[in-house]
Amino acid sequence: MLKRTDPYVPGEQLEGQILKLNTNENPYPPSPSVLNAISNEMKHNLQLYPSPTVEQLREVIARASNTSLKKENVFIGNGSDEVLAFSFMAFFEPGKTIRFPEVTYSFYPVYSKLFNISYEEISLNRDFTIPVERFFQSEGGVIFPNPNAPTSLFLSINKIEEIVQQNQDNVVIIDEAYIDFAQESAVSLLNKYDNLLIIQTTSKSRSLAGLRVGYALGHPDLIEGLTRIKDSFNSYTIDRLAIAGAQAAFEDKDYHQETIEKILKTREWVSIELKQLGFQVLPSQANFLFVSHYSLSAKSLYQALKLENILVRHFNKAPIDNYLRITIGKDNDMMELMKTIAKILIKQV
Amino acid sequence: MLKRTDPYVPGEQLEGQILKLNTNENPYPPSPSVLNAISNEMKHNLQLYPSPTVEQLREVIARASNTSLKKENVFIGNGSDEVLAFSFMAFFEPGKTIRFPEVTYSFYPVYSKLFNISYEEISLNRDFTIPVERFFQSEGGVIFPNPNAPTSLFLSINKIEEIVQQNQDNVVIIDEAYIDFAQESAVSLLNKYDNLLIIQTTSKSRSLAGLRVGYALGHPDLIEGLTRIKDSFNSYTIDRLAIAGAQAAFEDKDYHQETIEKILKTREWVSIELKQLGFQVLPSQANFLFVSHYSLSAKSLYQALKLENILVRHFNKAPIDNYLRITIGKDNDMMELMKTIAKILIKQV
Repeated sequence: MLKRTDPYVPGEQLEGQILKLNTNENPYPPSPSVLNAISNEMKHNLQLYPSPTVEQLREVIARASNTSLKKENVFIGNGSDEVLAFSFMAFFEPGKTIRFPEVTYSFYPVYSKLFNISYEEISLNRDFTIPVERFFQSEGGVIFPNPNAPTSLFLSINKIEEIVQQNQDNVVIIDEAYIDFAQESAVSLLNKYDNLLIIQTTSKSRSLAGLRVGYALGHPDLIEGLTRIKDSFNSYTIDRLAIAGAQAAFEDKDYHQETIEKILKTREWVSIELKQLGFQVLPSQANFLFVSHYSLSAKSLYQALKLENILVRHFNKAPIDNYLRITIGKDNDMMELMKTIAKILIKQV
Repeated sequence: MLKRTDPYVPGEQLEGQILKLNTNENPYPPSPSVLNAISNEMKHNLQLYPSPTVEQLREVIARASNTSLKKENVFIGNGSDEVLAFSFMAFFEPGKTIRFPEVTYSFYPVYSKLFNISYEEISLNRDFTIPVERFFQSEGGVIFPNPNAPTSLFLSINKIEEIVQQNQDNVVIIDEAYIDFAQESAVSLLNKYDNLLIIQTTSKSRSLAGLRVGYALGHPDLIEGLTRIKDSFNSYTIDRLAIAGAQAAFEDKDYHQETIEKILKTREWVSIELKQLGFQVLPSQANFLFVSHYSLSAKSLYQALKLENILVRHFNKAPIDNYLRITIGKDNDMMELMKTIAKILIKQV
């Protein structure tokens, strides 16, 4: 009676005194105005359904994009994972092979199997960059994150534009979960291309992983396609408190900017120190680092850190099985990580 | 590029001074302990993902069911609509025709089309009761609400047991969104049948439509099937505040009971008065009434009420196009409704 599926496995969520550097959460709390907004909202009408069209938040997001986007260009979902799932349903078809990188967000093959969409995994270049030309003229569409996960590497907007141009009959989805820690978003391309869908989230730079608000930006026809799927699935996917909280987060631009700057600063010194400890550190444009040690295997280091109550993410799959993905925490967290790694390396000798 | 879909149309959500008796929301706010729980939760870790397995809330729900159910018997989703969507994906297969009543929750045909599941709509008896035998030996499974919507009629647990027994190779889903306003839940059958799935929600009797928490109760194999779909779709579907709020709602049993009793009392006197005004009122076991007037058409009354800023639900579809679904509000709301209806009927003469 049960359908065959091959579910995604999220990062471990352990309880207790654990330093969690494994799920790329923001170490800083959301803006105080988020808590105020939630406090106000919860006193009214929790017994009433939320807006099924979420117009106000869509307007706020459009405005925050610093482009000419309007609410008709914005779709909101229950975390960017739901937006991704709806996008697979709306834009990719069984029988038309889509393409994504071999090393990428591991939910893409899960969605593909769930919705019977065939896919081709494109090997990365040896330096883990994306081989742009291999995404040209796809049969059924293209999806990849920028910056890519877990490699942390950023692909320039010019290169993304080439891929979009070379897939005019298909939808190209750029999953920008980590874009606020990177150079530049591809939103500037949206006024030129109607086959580009950009997916972002409030879970990373806006510190709202606990609230579940993701969104897509694109041509109104694409947004309409997503809306039709959503309205065939669940009329109200974002609750009243999440809507109020997310809206406040977008309105407090200063806090957002400060949080990002703190994380970028930490990323910088941690990268330097890790290199000094013998790590290869990929040039990250995300809120995590992707690293490999010249002598200690990633698996051993992952296990040794876990024994010390520090969780990082290890993917037990070639060609990245000798790498660890480490979330950027607060400075204190990262000093603890550095000390612990140094201790482990010394024991090793 | 867009897939053909035929989305569900939720009840109108208008702004302003409107008396909303059209989406079966609870007129009373949730328990004060819900607000306390949300206040506490929002101060901690909104930047961290919620639990992907929602174990604690599942335990609380199992306990609240007053049966021997355990958390392994409970699946939680983003409103019962998401639980329904996942259930269609998990338990119904393209090529095997499922059955549901012709007059029922209008989302079932929408899910069927979205997931390519063929379905047979079983006509109700002339008194709008469910023709039990016609659900025996289905090819692909059975789904219906109890009490049925929008008819408000309750089917006895004995009859449900017959349907479950006569569909041993398929899943029978009983959608109990309104069960707390009715005689008895079918949960008592769960220890005897592994092919019965019961879906409930916090949106109605627990006054949490704005929070989006629904759930399914059933054999651990069915729960496992739903979990696999969910984990292939979206790891975290319930946010931290919704988890905390729903948990508090289940723990305040007294408040829940009081709210239900208030609504049942209101339902009783409103039914009597509507009959006196010339309405046929079906014997409701839900928080809404399904009514038809002997002289004024449902459509005219719907429109006349809308002009007076009172929204009720009219389904423009035979055989129920001469009926209105009216949510039970507070006593004051219903007195206003009565007065307005009386006024409309007098003008009519």
